[in-house]
Amino acid sequence: MEIKVEEKILSANDRLALENRARLDAARVTAVNIMASPGAGKTSLILRTIEALRGRARLAVIEGDLASTVDADKIKAAGVPAVQINTGGGCHLDAVMIADALRQLALDDVDILLIENVGNLVCPTNFALGEHKRVLVASVPEGHDKPIKYPSSFVDLDAIVLNKMDLAPYVDFDLAAFERAVRAIDADVPIFHISCRTGEGLEAWVAWLMQQSGLS
Amino acid sequence: MEIKVEEKILSANDRLALENRARLDAARVTAVNIMASPGAGKTSLILRTIEALRGRARLAVIEGDLASTVDADKIKAAGVPAVQINTGGGCHLDAVMIADALRQLALDDVDILLIENVGNLVCPTNFALGEHKRVLVASVPEGHDKPIKYPSSFVDLDAIVLNKMDLAPYVDFDLAAFERAVRAIDADVPIFHISCRTGEGLEAWVAWLMQQSGLS
Repeated sequence: MEIKVEEKILSANDRLALENRARLDAARVTAVNIMASPGAGKTSLILRTIEALRGRARLAVIEGDLASTVDADKIKAAGVPAVQINTGGGCHLDAVMIADALRQLALDDVDILLIENVGNLVCPTNFALGEHKRVLVASVPEGHDKPIKYPSSFVDLDAIVLNKMDLAPYVDFDLAAFERAVRAIDADVPIFHISCRTGEGLEAWVAWLMQQSGLS
Repeated sequence: MEIKVEEKILSANDRLALENRARLDAARVTAVNIMASPGAGKTSLILRTIEALRGRARLAVIEGDLASTVDADKIKAAGVPAVQINTGGGCHLDAVMIADALRQLALDDVDILLIENVGNLVCPTNFALGEHKRVLVASVPEGHDKPIKYPSSFVDLDAIVLNKMDLAPYVDFDLAAFERAVRAIDADVPIFHISCRTGEGLEAWVAWLMQQSGLS
């Protein structure tokens, strides 16, 4: 007879992520970690989401970038509280950065916190932030082979947003092949087909987000 | 009076990169490290380059991916020796991986070695491979703000290839803003505007590559 005793040893990052999570839960905030390649449309998705949820949910945003405040400036211009994290070369956000950013937000006035991770399809997936939901933004011009070439980024997701559907007529993107590759990794994850440019498909994404946050 | 004594301490990776470089030099191979975000078109650029240089230069390719042999299979189908490196989750190539790949190539039969790094706009830039030239592939749908948001990836480049120019009419890409942002980092780096889909602009890139390799 074999008896296995397993104890999960939490990393320092995981422990701090749990503290972030507790803090968010205490303030009844649903936090969403949004990951993607550079230029897939994370900021555009956040701006479209802000627009769609105006008057329906109170949002806040944490913006992760290597440098610049370009993105946080856009969010603030849309009238939503935003904290910019500059990683100074770091390739992903971590729980320490989020803990610091949470201190700068009035969490009691927030329903949904959107966290835009550093544009990187590899590293962010390995670092828990304390988020409730993990969302990957893929984009049509990146090609349908991304789940095959970056499988670790397609694991343990709560949703995939496939952005830039408006460019499908101009590139060789095989939607069926993309979905087959996703399904080989995750049989159930919802895939939202959207275009932040045209607004196509945003309702379904926003409805899902509201539902996940207990707001609908 | 202040006297500064500076000594560069080489990392293990840097030392091995110098060994790779010596090995390439001995075989008269020019090695090009090709970096980009996922889906910017590194493999398409390599395939177009193979096509353009057929009969003019002897190429070989090292393909870096987290997983799969999709890319190396495409290169081999084009009749060029290719070694696939799977990093198994690793976010960049390093000099150890290249040393191993070089052992699998008949370097005396190669003029130009194209090394496709892992799709990642952050991490690969920090790891020397022993390459002679560092090239970044940017793509139009990623947006013109990438040099501002990922400045470290635009430092110390020998060329920038701006791919997917054919998509410019369908996205909000401000070419002047992109070039201004690049010039703020590097006043002189050549920028090639190309479309791997249509073939537009490839001659200038290929001519530059031939020149850098001492073949023209």
